[in-house]
Amino acid sequence: MANISHLNIPVVHNLVLNRQSTNKRKIINDPVHGFIGVSSGLLFDLISHPFFQRLRRIRQLGLTHLVYPGATHSRFQHALGSMHLMQLAIGVIRSKGHEITDCEEEAALAAILLHDIGHGPFSHTLESSIIPRVPHEQMSVLLIQELNRQFDGSLSLAEEIFSGRYKKKFLHQLVAGQLDMDRMDYLKRDSFYTGVTEGVIGSDRIIKMLNVVDDHLVVEAKGIYSIEKFLIARRLMYWQVYYHKTVVAADCLLTLVLKRARQLVHEGRKLFASPFLQFFLKNDLGINHDVFRPGTDAPAVIINNFVNLDDDDILSAAKVWANHDDEILALLAGWFTGRALFRTEFSHASFPVQKTEYLRQQAGLAFRIPDSLAGYFVVSGEISNYAYKTEDEKIKILYNNGGLTDISEASDMLNVTVLSKTVKKYFLCYPKNIEPFYRDQ
Amino acid sequence: MANISHLNIPVVHNLVLNRQSTNKRKIINDPVHGFIGVSSGLLFDLISHPFFQRLRRIRQLGLTHLVYPGATHSRFQHALGSMHLMQLAIGVIRSKGHEITDCEEEAALAAILLHDIGHGPFSHTLESSIIPRVPHEQMSVLLIQELNRQFDGSLSLAEEIFSGRYKKKFLHQLVAGQLDMDRMDYLKRDSFYTGVTEGVIGSDRIIKMLNVVDDHLVVEAKGIYSIEKFLIARRLMYWQVYYHKTVVAADCLLTLVLKRARQLVHEGRKLFASPFLQFFLKNDLGINHDVFRPGTDAPAVIINNFVNLDDDDILSAAKVWANHDDEILALLAGWFTGRALFRTEFSHASFPVQKTEYLRQQAGLAFRIPDSLAGYFVVSGEISNYAYKTEDEKIKILYNNGGLTDISEASDMLNVTVLSKTVKKYFLCYPKNIEPFYRDQ
Amino acid sequence: MANISHLNIPVVHNLVLNRQSTNKRKIINDPVHGFIGVSSGLLFDLISHPFFQRLRRIRQLGLTHLVYPGATHSRFQHALGSMHLMQLAIGVIRSKGHEITDCEEEAALAAILLHDIGHGPFSHTLESSIIPRVPHEQMSVLLIQELNRQFDGSLSLAEEIFSGRYKKKFLHQLVAGQLDMDRMDYLKRDSFYTGVTEGVIGSDRIIKMLNVVDDHLVVEAKGIYSIEKFLIARRLMYWQVYYHKTVVAADCLLTLVLKRARQLVHEGRKLFASPFLQFFLKNDLGINHDVFRPGTDAPAVIINNFVNLDDDDILSAAKVWANHDDEILALLAGWFTGRALFRTEFSHASFPVQKTEYLRQQAGLAFRIPDSLAGYFVVSGEISNYAYKTEDEKIKILYNNGGLTDISEASDMLNVTVLSKTVKKYFLCYPKNIEPFYRDQ
Amino acid sequence: MANISHLNIPVVHNLVLNRQSTNKRKIINDPVHGFIGVSSGLLFDLISHPFFQRLRRIRQLGLTHLVYPGATHSRFQHALGSMHLMQLAIGVIRSKGHEITDCEEEAALAAILLHDIGHGPFSHTLESSIIPRVPHEQMSVLLIQELNRQFDGSLSLAEEIFSGRYKKKFLHQLVAGQLDMDRMDYLKRDSFYTGVTEGVIGSDRIIKMLNVVDDHLVVEAKGIYSIEKFLIARRLMYWQVYYHKTVVAADCLLTLVLKRARQLVHEGRKLFASPFLQFFLKNDLGINHDVFRPGTDAPAVIINNFVNLDDDDILSAAKVWANHDDEILALLAGWFTGRALFRTEFSHASFPVQKTEYLRQQAGLAFRIPDSLAGYFVVSGEISNYAYKTEDEKIKILYNNGGLTDISEASDMLNVTVLSKTVKKYFLCYPKNIEPFYRDQ
Repeated sequence: MANISHLNIPVVHNLVLNRQSTNKRKIINDPVHGFIGVSSGLLFDLISHPFFQRLRRIRQLGLTHLVYPGATHSRFQHALGSMHLMQLAIGVIRSKGHEITDCEEEAALAAILLHDIGHGPFSHTLESSIIPRVPHEQMSVLLIQELNRQFDGSLSLAEEIFSGRYKKKFLHQLVAGQLDMDRMDYLKRDSFYTGVTEGVIGSDRIIKMLNVVDDHLVVEAKGIYSIEKFLIARRLMYWQVYYHKTVVAADCLLTLVLKRARQLVHEGRKLFASPFLQFFLKNDLGINHDVFRPGTDAPAVIINNFVNLDDDDILSAAKVWANHDDEILALLAGWFTGRALFRTEFSHASFPVQKTEYLRQQAGLAFRIPDSLAGYFVVSGEISNYAYKTEDEKIKILYNNGGLTDISEASDMLNVTVLSKTVKKYFLCYPKNIEPFYRDQ
Repeated sequence: MANISHLNIPVVHNLVLNRQSTNKRKIINDPVHGFIGVSSGLLFDLISHPFFQRLRRIRQLGLTHLVYPGATHSRFQHALGSMHLMQLAIGVIRSKGHEITDCEEEAALAAILLHDIGHGPFSHTLESSIIPRVPHEQMSVLLIQELNRQFDGSLSLAEEIFSGRYKKKFLHQLVAGQLDMDRMDYLKRDSFYTGVTEGVIGSDRIIKMLNVVDDHLVVEAKGIYSIEKFLIARRLMYWQVYYHKTVVAADCLLTLVLKRARQLVHEGRKLFASPFLQFFLKNDLGINHDVFRPGTDAPAVIINNFVNLDDDDILSAAKVWANHDDEILALLAGWFTGRALFRTEFSHASFPVQKTEYLRQQAGLAFRIPDSLAGYFVVSGEISNYAYKTEDEKIKILYNNGGLTDISEASDMLNVTVLSKTVKKYFLCYPKNIEPFYRDQ
Repeated sequence: MANISHLNIPVVHNLVLNRQSTNKRKIINDPVHGFIGVSSGLLFDLISHPFFQRLRRIRQLGLTHLVYPGATHSRFQHALGSMHLMQLAIGVIRSKGHEITDCEEEAALAAILLHDIGHGPFSHTLESSIIPRVPHEQMSVLLIQELNRQFDGSLSLAEEIFSGRYKKKFLHQLVAGQLDMDRMDYLKRDSFYTGVTEGVIGSDRIIKMLNVVDDHLVVEAKGIYSIEKFLIARRLMYWQVYYHKTVVAADCLLTLVLKRARQLVHEGRKLFASPFLQFFLKNDLGINHDVFRPGTDAPAVIINNFVNLDDDDILSAAKVWANHDDEILALLAGWFTGRALFRTEFSHASFPVQKTEYLRQQAGLAFRIPDSLAGYFVVSGEISNYAYKTEDEKIKILYNNGGLTDISEASDMLNVTVLSKTVKKYFLCYPKNIEPFYRDQ
Repeated sequence: MANISHLNIPVVHNLVLNRQSTNKRKIINDPVHGFIGVSSGLLFDLISHPFFQRLRRIRQLGLTHLVYPGATHSRFQHALGSMHLMQLAIGVIRSKGHEITDCEEEAALAAILLHDIGHGPFSHTLESSIIPRVPHEQMSVLLIQELNRQFDGSLSLAEEIFSGRYKKKFLHQLVAGQLDMDRMDYLKRDSFYTGVTEGVIGSDRIIKMLNVVDDHLVVEAKGIYSIEKFLIARRLMYWQVYYHKTVVAADCLLTLVLKRARQLVHEGRKLFASPFLQFFLKNDLGINHDVFRPGTDAPAVIINNFVNLDDDDILSAAKVWANHDDEILALLAGWFTGRALFRTEFSHASFPVQKTEYLRQQAGLAFRIPDSLAGYFVVSGEISNYAYKTEDEKIKILYNNGGLTDISEASDMLNVTVLSKTVKKYFLCYPKNIEPFYRDQ
């Protein structure tokens, strides 16, 4: 741990004022769901906690707003919306005769509220260039444990539900499963904010059709068309929004910006950045790092820096870097800030090495940089999506006679072959003013 | 001008890539209006320009999202939406037999697109603590002039319309007037994003009812109820959203944060901040500064710093300041970042000096700071709003017989006394854990 | 009663099947509110009852769909929607610590469900030409009493609440008052179906702000802007929709059609009509008729005919009458069916007798009918509306300190003078191809 | 033709007033699309014509409102909405460089406006029991020809487009094809009015993506997900709304009511009915009737009766029939009017004869009717639907490189096998209080 610079970040005093608040605001306006009620003091305090307030500064869809300008919504809203749907789902399941105690209800609400707490800014970028290979789920567990400590153990049941260790498995499925409240909210919310109305799902109807059989979440038979529609809508959102060519281009560019910044920091060059961003640029906190070994407590310094890092640090720094001495950083950051994005090509097959090489050469010539650095201008990779994962907990349809069938069999239209197919696409990004054509040699 | 530190910010190269783009994207998805078309290459290039792209990083409603979490929309969207409505309005007015040439159309679209270009981050805060007393309209003029220079004079007509110098006055009224496309968009958009559905206005209907008489924008008689509704909705949005107690509290807090930061910079203390924010903290660029004298060209350095400053610089800095040595800055910035906001009281009369004094003393005791600095914890001020300004260009109603009447006379309900009344409220903000009661001496 | 022809209408057997139904459908899709739940067997049985099912065949807005084609919604939907809002309101009021027992809840839901049960087809027309001067409220009481009899007294409490005799007055105010659930639903629903978006009210927000003080419904202070908006929206709907010129024209025409039909029946002429419509055309059931004397049981025959009469009888008959031998009836009914409506003039003063006379003469000439019958072609009358009735139960605003103020004082904008003003307009309707100009003699 | 009773229905005089109207109302409010403009005098006159006004009295979804109470919308609205979308589509196609003359535009608008003009009340019922086996398309052609005659040939081009004889085939495809404006409107409108939000389609986006290649309508590649969604949404609406169990039950019941009424009329029994309904009950106007032989002019009497028949005649008569002497008619009509609907069973295989027989016996016993008439109480049949008809004009996807691919190949998910599969279901309807179980013999 010696290589981690210590910062003393007193996050706790922020809480003082809120905790004393007697008039706890209980209703929140949400353009997607209407009014969202906060049903307990614990939930109110969680929402007021700086760890959670920080989600206000992390856009739910990262750079997607560069294509769909409306999509500026935050993870904060999404977490509240998911909690709201969880409340509805619990009401429905209870009304069908399944017991959920008040404690379980509060814990399930807390678990869904915190399900994305470990998301950093621009998650995918962060996961590859800031805390390499540490998935956000792992950070969520760290933060929930820390919160549980601060809240004197009141979150133990929530943590059990979150991690799937609690005996009533269906509560976990509501938090993380093929029909969880996370998806119900994000599909609806992302459709709403992007204006891609085809992504709208009938979350209200699906929730009304939920039931529990043998401790598993199931959907009643008359909800089958809604489920088909939900699977198709999700897929549409993936290809039309989340993996939109220009979004991929922007993600690549930001990844390159941070990769270059990181490289410069490691070379000892000076760089403008908030101390929180400095911390992650300087340290190498990959998944193999000691702190992620099971049984190890993450040092406070990692958590403190993490919970202070958000979109603003990165965007603010990138803007300054557009004037950095390092020409590569300056170019990349300038393009990023001014939205002069890469061209993206998609293909069902991987791109030939010659093409990539050729483009790197062209980039080298165009921007007068040595071959060894031309990789900063041409990136390839792959993206994939499936409608329905047959290996996961399946979506079961419950018939009036009590029979259960997997959705892939119950559906007239979406048979298992179609549903379980993973669609994979290869992408290639490079500056728009480079000539993409090359001759075979 | 000697005291202005020079920074060389090459914003121009960002443009290179976009300008070369041949496949100009012409349709933008907007959750409020559906699809927004970009009707000319000039408009496309304006939208692609870094000055305009920067509006993506400035929230339309500043800190309002702290109360209405959905309200994260940017000035970028609002400008596009206003342009869209302008296009509709031009179509309606043309269809009623009034000539608007293609040049005038493009210029009017450019003018509305740029109407808010001079907005900085958290405008009100900025106007009081960053560029004191320089209204954003003044900055808009500076930036439009600079853009016109960069676009080789293609924006001259747009500038004339914007500043009201063009002969067809009604075009200016569509950009800035009591029924301008700015208001039509922002009321609808702000309602949409906050979820305050009562603020929704029938902008489509009002636009259908627009007409021109003697070069003035008028509304046909059957639009009268829509206008009443529009005036009431605007008023509702003011008191329920823009001047919501908690929004006022957040604005006050941020103003104090920046005031303290500015003070420390002037005392020579070191402070984390992006160079752009540093520039404005260090320099005193009030309205009386040389650069705002008519006929003077604003030095490039001011413009360059201004167009690089946005919400991110301020939010990112505030987060770092929460750990500053200066206890006042640390407290204020910590509260701000963690959303531990002030309590706000509203009153129709100004608050007695004794109350303010008492609260300052209490704050001094609570936070152990000298009396002279207690002003950083207790702020008072006033806010006001009117439904309809009788001194301004009036809203005229056009009857079938050709007669024109002022809305304040035409309306059965909203007579002039009611309409023109300015409602003023006094506010007082102070930390929540201070005892607000005091005894008369 | 001798002049009332007896019909034996066995409505009861319809019920048999439904009552046996064990799987009572509990959730109804509503485009305005989403899902509407039916919370008890009694409510389910009421909804299934033919008296209530008949509301499916009565359009909420009568002939308004001739102007706003979307407005085809039925009183059935409106009654369900009002019940839904009542459920929400009861939940809110309970959550604020006021007791509402389960019995009271069911009774209040039944009362609002049945609040419009006494509406006949095209109410205004019916009230003037079918059952002259018997307001629908009186018919509602008759029918609720009959239902109570059929349901063995289970509706006694509902009837007490409906008629304002129950001790908890606020329950009656929720059914019929200046802020009742009837208005909350109809304003929202009528806006939705007409497409007049400005009429949309924030019923959800208003309901969240309801409270009870001294057994009276009040609104918490932060709902004040929503109330202002509600009053304005209601007024807008009146003048823009309910009293739209063309709607007034259509209402006049239908009134004349029925007046002529009635006249012919009384003259002994034969006329196509369903037996139910025949009954009302033949008998003179005005308010002074014996059956409406207090203490008298309405004979089953009146009820049986009334609950079988709906829009279809009238529209179907009018279509046939377009070919009647009587030229006046044929003309009027033909125009009505083909939507060849009258021209309508509005005025703030009553129309001069000479003008009306002149138009009648012109009509006589144009359609070759004797002077004595020309009144069938020219009608005048008046309509009026007020935003807020000061003589009624007032809308009280509840402040945080417990103080109560009338909305007309609490509102900055809508003072009592403005609010309580009754706006009255005179109208004059006549065929479009008559020359409306006349010379003074 | 001797057996057709002659009625003289002077529909023409209705027109007089409207045709003289100088102030033609040009904008119609529509809750689904906002404002719908009427772009020419011919279109205005068509809309004002009694043939078209009659569509106001025919519900778009027949009896569906018995399940989804909001679905009371009329064919009138749907026709206007389709015309509106046609206008948008023509704008899009023109903007992509394809010529559509003003005449062609008006004709295409007229063609879509009239595409459903031949629909009678409760089409499916009508087609089986009123004008047996005459599809509404055939009636539409008859009526368009008659209108063309009345409009002195102004509709000749519209008729050519409607019937697919016009040289520009894509115009016909916009009227009737797998992506026609009819479907675009009805899916959106039916979703809106039923409240089944999952049926919402992105018609705006699909229309933006339309193009024409080799005189065929195609969809640009980036619209592919919207098309998938459209196909799925259409399928969902079929099974969740149009073929909802209770809707099938209601349709069956109404069919039986009319079948019995027809039988009684043929037996010479007297029956209340409007002359228009009498006409169709009395005459046997099946597809083999002389009047439908090609080259034969339909006698005016058929047209005159047809255009005067609507939902009201049938509903009003059914209500009266509930008291008819014939017990079977009285029972069926009473159930229908009081919404005491049949139970419906669905099955993927046809129902065994024994089961049907058993149920008929039970019905005979329960309602004390002879075996020979028990068929009036138990009905079976089948319904089917396919997502995409491969034999029809295909939906072609247009790639950037100019290539065209069938949607069933272009889609990653919806392969041809899945898409072209016809889903068929068998249904069985019988009174709810009959015991559905039987023993094998």
